Amino acid sequence: MLSALDLARRIERGELPVAAVVGACADAIAACEAEIGAFAALDLAGAERQAKISAQTAALPLRGLPVGVKDIIDTIDFATSYGSPIYAGYRPASDASIVSMIRRAGGIVIGKTVTTPFAYLDPGKTRNPRNPAHTPGGSSSGSAAAVAAGMVPIALGTQTGGSIIRPAAFCGVAGFKPSFRLLPTAGIKCFSWSLDTAGMFAASVADVAFAAAAISGRDLLVEEVAAVPPRIALTRTQQWSDASDAMRTAVEAAARAAAAKGAEVRELELPAIFDEASQAFATIQSYEGWRAYAFEYDHHRDRLPLRLRDLLDKAAAITPDAYDAARRVAKRARQTLNQLATDIDVLLTPSAATAAPKGLDFLGSPSFNRLWTLMGVPCINVPGLADADGMPLGVQIVGRFARDRTALAAALFVEQAIAAENPRLLAARDS
Amino acid sequence: MLSALDLARRIERGELPVAAVVGACADAIAACEAEIGAFAALDLAGAERQAKISAQTAALPLRGLPVGVKDIIDTIDFATSYGSPIYAGYRPASDASIVSMIRRAGGIVIGKTVTTPFAYLDPGKTRNPRNPAHTPGGSSSGSAAAVAAGMVPIALGTQTGGSIIRPAAFCGVAGFKPSFRLLPTAGIKCFSWSLDTAGMFAASVADVAFAAAAISGRDLLVEEVAAVPPRIALTRTQQWSDASDAMRTAVEAAARAAAAKGAEVRELELPAIFDEASQAFATIQSYEGWRAYAFEYDHHRDRLPLRLRDLLDKAAAITPDAYDAARRVAKRARQTLNQLATDIDVLLTPSAATAAPKGLDFLGSPSFNRLWTLMGVPCINVPGLADADGMPLGVQIVGRFARDRTALAAALFVEQAIAAENPRLLAARDS
Repeated sequence: MLSALDLARRIERGELPVAAVVGACADAIAACEAEIGAFAALDLAGAERQAKISAQTAALPLRGLPVGVKDIIDTIDFATSYGSPIYAGYRPASDASIVSMIRRAGGIVIGKTVTTPFAYLDPGKTRNPRNPAHTPGGSSSGSAAAVAAGMVPIALGTQTGGSIIRPAAFCGVAGFKPSFRLLPTAGIKCFSWSLDTAGMFAASVADVAFAAAAISGRDLLVEEVAAVPPRIALTRTQQWSDASDAMRTAVEAAARAAAAKGAEVRELELPAIFDEASQAFATIQSYEGWRAYAFEYDHHRDRLPLRLRDLLDKAAAITPDAYDAARRVAKRARQTLNQLATDIDVLLTPSAATAAPKGLDFLGSPSFNRLWTLMGVPCINVPGLADADGMPLGVQIVGRFARDRTALAAALFVEQAIAAENPRLLAARDS
Repeated sequence: MLSALDLARRIERGELPVAAVVGACADAIAACEAEIGAFAALDLAGAERQAKISAQTAALPLRGLPVGVKDIIDTIDFATSYGSPIYAGYRPASDASIVSMIRRAGGIVIGKTVTTPFAYLDPGKTRNPRNPAHTPGGSSSGSAAAVAAGMVPIALGTQTGGSIIRPAAFCGVAGFKPSFRLLPTAGIKCFSWSLDTAGMFAASVADVAFAAAAISGRDLLVEEVAAVPPRIALTRTQQWSDASDAMRTAVEAAARAAAAKGAEVRELELPAIFDEASQAFATIQSYEGWRAYAFEYDHHRDRLPLRLRDLLDKAAAITPDAYDAARRVAKRARQTLNQLATDIDVLLTPSAATAAPKGLDFLGSPSFNRLWTLMGVPCINVPGLADADGMPLGVQIVGRFARDRTALAAALFVEQAIAAENPRLLAARDS
């Protein structure tokens, strides 16, 4: 994989021309893309052109690094089809805000990465670079796979349920879903305005923190483990019984590794309100999706993929009262979470129930992600562990709302603790 | 003016064909549009066609009523230019969610109404139907004017600062800015994701409540004054000194009229946190606008109107820390407002500092609106009062978050109290 932070440092020091990074991406794309299918659109020639005139760009925070952009995010220079034939060849009239922020920060948009259609649970064409017989997860399938295959150092994704953390876990890369509304979603196809969150993928926690800092202009860079170890709560959640034995083992191993490196680790059981909140998630997503995708449903129902069509067929019946009740539950759960265990910095919990399932049809369940998306809190997939077959097992760090830096720092700590404890398990990541 | 509720009732009873309503709009447009300039795009022939095949439509909540849609809201069948030459002739690939909701509810989109460029403070072409030498206010200038001139019974607007309540007040119509996120903003050009709120204009409070109920499917219809009179707090706010004598008199007259009809009216002084919140508004709007309009600023700065360009020039310097501090102030103010005077249903305060200023360049100040937009609470402009020159003076009812029905019911009460107390003052509205 390409380390965004390492590449940026070398460009900054004048050791590496931006064009060489674009060249490395082009080589990886030539080698992998036919099999992996991470891109919906690519413009290597355009990226090379931009790389050549990038003397000023190399002075900007992103240093001319190539970025893949999930194809539900509008771009002026690439077709944006939301993963659906309904929008085949559609050219937006402007860049999404987050794309403008990437360009302002000196990033080069190299291509659009595959999204599942309208960012729901129907599969796209992408395969998992760790094993092409397995799903990369979704909905940000192409972004996770493009980073995992070394085709780009940074890729943008979005999460409404588990669409960043899950594919990051399945592909063995770092994924960062920031606090709700830390990054703008203007110009991103809306599924659920209470849930949609923009974020990114990169090789490691430090890389994803670098990307987030450079794009947002915020103090999010975490390069070295902080002097004070984090206070971590191992949180099994009510979904623990869904998790595979390998995943349970991985999360517990991560907890032990963190404790061995000096972190304060204890267990935390979530109050019952969070069971209710998981139900509330489904109501909110469906109610808002029925309105956000109203045009597509009313004009193109027959061309919608099956799972999304089924969701929307049922969503029509959700009443405003049911939606309002769900929002009240979410609000109470957020307040509870905020007051819960204030002596703890972050939670440690699975990123997904399992490693990437075999086959491309089933994208895996977002059951370990929905609650945190609804809570609006920062989440990071920490890569580094793997199952007996070498498939990545992601563990998730969940932070407090608006404490994104603390969450990233804790994720970095856990990542390094895992690496120190069991370097063998990192083999999958470094291959 | 055309009463949406009255027209809907007559269509429902089979007394009025939908085509006749479209015809009445066409007549008013023929008579007024050349002078008023409320529309950016019109399709009367299309509306007539839709009206003819509207047997099923007439059974839907909006009963085939024509609706004007502010031109920062995407429509598939009309160009959507956001009030700017940058987007002249731009045809979106889909309808905004709120437009789909109108069509689902049986409304006919008759045209796009003039917005000020990108919904900021630079003027559009629209004149005030009460006196064409005066501004209609903005940014939803065309929607307010189209309703005031009887050209449509319902028009959609949006409010980021004071863009619904102020033009409604200046044009002497009812305007409703619902609770934040009650109506979806997907497909509406984003200025500030923490502030942008969709809402609507209609002739009277009952009409705007009817429109909101029909479009949202929510229990918002208020036709008759409730048995229990509202508990109202006359709230002068820290901007009171900006208000003209005529406006102060109008608000106090409204309070007396409501009390005379049995409402509990007392005075409420806002704590100091609300001064801070008004400052926070400016920081939040600018910080988010710098990102939401990044593409337009970076690619078309020279074609941006002066006031918006000036705002964005300065916005670049706002730091994430300043923005976060502003959001914390806003959050504390929301909590304070929620706990403040829980024995009160609504606040009564000016809708604007003055009646519509003379001239078209100055759109009036949103100083009496910004705070409430930031608070996310429902606001209604109650028409019915006027100054010595017959120019409307709007008074504003501000409700509690998510208590939109209570706010509309109180606004209806105040509207009828004003009418009962001083029918002469209603002359401007009924002319």
